[in-house]
Amino acid sequence: MIGVGLLGLGTVGSGVHQILTNKRDYIKRKLGEEIIIQKILVKDVTKKRKYHVDNFLLTDKFEDVLKDSAIQVIVELIGGEEPSFSYIKEAIKRGKHIVTANKLIMAKHGEEIVRLAEENSVKVYYEGSVGGGIPIIKTLNESLVANKIERIYGILNGTTNYILTQMTEKKVDFKDALKEAQNLGYAESDPYFDVSGLDSAYKISILSSLSYETFVDVDSLYIEGIERIEPEDIEIADELGYVIKLLAIGKRLENDKLDIRVHPTFVPKNNPISRINGVYNVVQIHGDTVGEIMMYGQGAGEMPTASAVVADIIEVAKNIKYNISNGLINNLQPHTLVSIDEVENPFYIRLMVNDKPGVFAKIAKVLGDNNVSIASVIQKHRLTPVVPIFLRTHPVKEKYLNQAASELSMIDDVREIKNIIRVEEL
Amino acid sequence: MIGVGLLGLGTVGSGVHQILTNKRDYIKRKLGEEIIIQKILVKDVTKKRKYHVDNFLLTDKFEDVLKDSAIQVIVELIGGEEPSFSYIKEAIKRGKHIVTANKLIMAKHGEEIVRLAEENSVKVYYEGSVGGGIPIIKTLNESLVANKIERIYGILNGTTNYILTQMTEKKVDFKDALKEAQNLGYAESDPYFDVSGLDSAYKISILSSLSYETFVDVDSLYIEGIERIEPEDIEIADELGYVIKLLAIGKRLENDKLDIRVHPTFVPKNNPISRINGVYNVVQIHGDTVGEIMMYGQGAGEMPTASAVVADIIEVAKNIKYNISNGLINNLQPHTLVSIDEVENPFYIRLMVNDKPGVFAKIAKVLGDNNVSIASVIQKHRLTPVVPIFLRTHPVKEKYLNQAASELSMIDDVREIKNIIRVEEL
Repeated sequence: MIGVGLLGLGTVGSGVHQILTNKRDYIKRKLGEEIIIQKILVKDVTKKRKYHVDNFLLTDKFEDVLKDSAIQVIVELIGGEEPSFSYIKEAIKRGKHIVTANKLIMAKHGEEIVRLAEENSVKVYYEGSVGGGIPIIKTLNESLVANKIERIYGILNGTTNYILTQMTEKKVDFKDALKEAQNLGYAESDPYFDVSGLDSAYKISILSSLSYETFVDVDSLYIEGIERIEPEDIEIADELGYVIKLLAIGKRLENDKLDIRVHPTFVPKNNPISRINGVYNVVQIHGDTVGEIMMYGQGAGEMPTASAVVADIIEVAKNIKYNISNGLINNLQPHTLVSIDEVENPFYIRLMVNDKPGVFAKIAKVLGDNNVSIASVIQKHRLTPVVPIFLRTHPVKEKYLNQAASELSMIDDVREIKNIIRVEEL
Repeated sequence: MIGVGLLGLGTVGSGVHQILTNKRDYIKRKLGEEIIIQKILVKDVTKKRKYHVDNFLLTDKFEDVLKDSAIQVIVELIGGEEPSFSYIKEAIKRGKHIVTANKLIMAKHGEEIVRLAEENSVKVYYEGSVGGGIPIIKTLNESLVANKIERIYGILNGTTNYILTQMTEKKVDFKDALKEAQNLGYAESDPYFDVSGLDSAYKISILSSLSYETFVDVDSLYIEGIERIEPEDIEIADELGYVIKLLAIGKRLENDKLDIRVHPTFVPKNNPISRINGVYNVVQIHGDTVGEIMMYGQGAGEMPTASAVVADIIEVAKNIKYNISNGLINNLQPHTLVSIDEVENPFYIRLMVNDKPGVFAKIAKVLGDNNVSIASVIQKHRLTPVVPIFLRTHPVKEKYLNQAASELSMIDDVREIKNIIRVEEL
C-alpha cells in the first residue's frame, strides 16, 4: 500500500481525489499495489463539498500530513508561493516524494527544490504544472532525450487563448471577450495573472529549463500580455495570412544564448498552432533528430490536470514499490539570455495618421533611417480626417524598431501608434 | 557500459548508429554510463555506406550478435516478418532486452513476444513502430495511465497522407500524386503496403491493444486503401466542409465492443486532424479524464524514428544500470470486435446518372426503403447526358447502406456508383 497526503482540495485536488477513489481497483490491478489517500489538508474541514469526501481524511493542520508515517507521497495542489513552498521543502526534508502542479514554485524555485530533493533522495514530479493533461514534461525528459532541443513554441494559457479566439471568431473586443470568459469560469475575477502573460511565462520558463538543461528564472524574461489587442489588429492579421496568439517562445540561438519570451504574436495560418483555439493549449518542439513534434490538449481544468497528477503519483508509487531510486542525470548548466533589444523579428505596426499627402513618405523615411525595411503596407480608405496605416516590416532587431517607433511618434501627422506586434514565421 | 547489438543498418539503423556515435558523450553524461554498439548485423559487410561505420562492428551472422556476452540490448531494425521474428524470440530467450520499430511483428505477434519477454524477465520497447518520433506509446502506457481510453483517431501513414495532400492542394489524380511521392522517396516502388491501408492497420492495432488492454489481431480488421479516391471526391468534400484523410480509428463502444478500422474518411475541416498535411502523422486520443489530446510529428524517416528508438535504448539502459526490473502490469483481456456491417456512420456517395426527370426520385425511394436518410444533395449542371450526384447521408449502419447501394446500382438510369466514403464527425 502506498500512502498519499493531499495538500488542497480545490479544483485539481477534487479531481485527483475522485480518480484515486473511483479507479482504486483499476490502479491496484495496473500497479499491483493500492494507492490510498491518508490525509487531505484543507482550510476549512466543515465546508460543504460538491463530491463526497470521507470526513476523517480532512485536517487543517499541515503537521498532521507531514508526520503521518503511512504517507510516502505528498501531493501539493494548493498553488501560489506560500505556504506551498515551505510545505514542499519540509516534506522533502522528511523524505517524502513530491507531486505538484505548482508552476509558480517550479518556475521560481525549481532549482532549489530539485537540489533539496536530490540531497534527501526523493523525487519531485510536476507534469501537471504545464499544459494540463498534455504529457509535455515526460516527453522532454524521456522521449526526446536523444535530441538537442532547438525551439519550443507554446500556447500555454487557456484563458487568453479563449479570449483571443472569441475576439477572432466573434469580432468582439477584449473587454467583452474577457467578461464572457469570466462568466464561463475560464477567467478569474482578477484576470491579471493570465492576461498579463505571467502564467505563460512560468510555464515557458519550466519547459526551457528542461529543454536546455538549465534553470531559467521567470523574473528575467520579457513578458507582454494581450490587453492591448484590438479587433482591428486581428482583422488585419487575418488579411495578411496570420492569427494573433499569445505565444510563449523558448529558443536556443546559434550562439547558444537563450531567447525566451511571451507576447502576442502574428502566427502564420499555415502553421497548425494557429488552429488551436478556445481553452486548448499546444506545445510545438523542434529537436535536432525528431524534427518537429506538436502536442495539444486541454490546458487546465479539474480532470485534465488531475489526469497528469495521478500519472505522476502512479510513477512515484511504481518507484517506491520496486525500489527504483535513480533516473537520468540533469547537470544544470548556466545560461545567457539574449536581451530583448537584440531579438530580431518582423513586426506589425498600426498607426493612426492625418489623411494628407506626403505623410507616408515621412514615415517611410524614418523607418529607412533606422534600418527598418517595409514588407507590406495596407491603407484603408475612410471618410475621416484620421486614417489607419498597417505596416509589416522585414526582420529587424527590436532596438532599431523601438528607435524608429519613438521617432515616428514625433512626426506631426502621426496621431498615434496604436499597436506593435511581433511576427513569428515559425 | 551498456552493450548494444544492432540488427539492420538501413534507414533507421543508420540513424540510430549516428545518434549513438555522435552523442556518445552527451548520453554518458545524462545516463552516467556509456552506451556502446558492439555489433551490427548486415546483409553485406562489404557494401559501401553513406556514413562511416567501423568495419570491425559489422557481421553477416546473427549468431555473432546473439552470443556476444557484452550485448545486453538487441535493437531489431530489419523490418518485415522473418527473419526478424525469429531473431527477436531467440534474443529474448538468451535474456537480451529488445528495442524494435517493427510494427508488423508487434501487430501480428505482440502478444507472444510480450509473454515470452515476461517469462525471460526482459523488456520489449517499440516506440518507433508507430508514428515515428511521436511518443505515443509512452503516452498511452504512462501519461494516460489514469484514463479509460474512449477513442483513438490517427493519420498513421505518411505516404498516403502526402498523396492525399497533393491531390487536395494541387488537384492532381491518385496516379500522378503517387508517382511524385515515389520520385521524392516518400513511397516505395511497390506502394501496396502503404496505399492499401495495411501499414496504418498494423499501427492502429498496436495502439488499440495498448489502449484497451487486449491484443488486437490486425487480420481481423476492416481495411480500405486510398486507390479509389478521385479529385472530384476531394472537391466535393471541400464544398461540404471536409478533408479526405486515410483515418485509422480505434473506438471502445458503449457495449465495450471495439470498433477498429482503417479507411478513407471525410474529416471535418474544423478538427485539427484535417490540417495535418504532407508526410506528417497525428494521433488524437480521447480519455475519460484527460479529455482530448493530440500529438503530431514526422511519421517516418531516418532521424525521427531513430529518435524514438534511441529513447527506448536509453530507457532500457537506465533499467539495466539501476537494476529496475518491473513496471506496470498489463493483464491482456479478450475483446469482441464489432462487425463492420453494424458500424454506424454518415456516408458520402458519388453516383453517375442519366440526366432525366424522375431519376432522383427513384434514388431517394431506394434510400428511404433501406432506412438511409439523406442529409444533403449536390447536383452539378453539366452539358452531358450523364451527370454526377453527390449525396451525404445521416448516420446509418453499413449493412443498410450496402443494401441500398446494391439496389441503386440496379436502377436503369444509375450508370455507376463511383465512390462511397465514410464520414466521421470526430
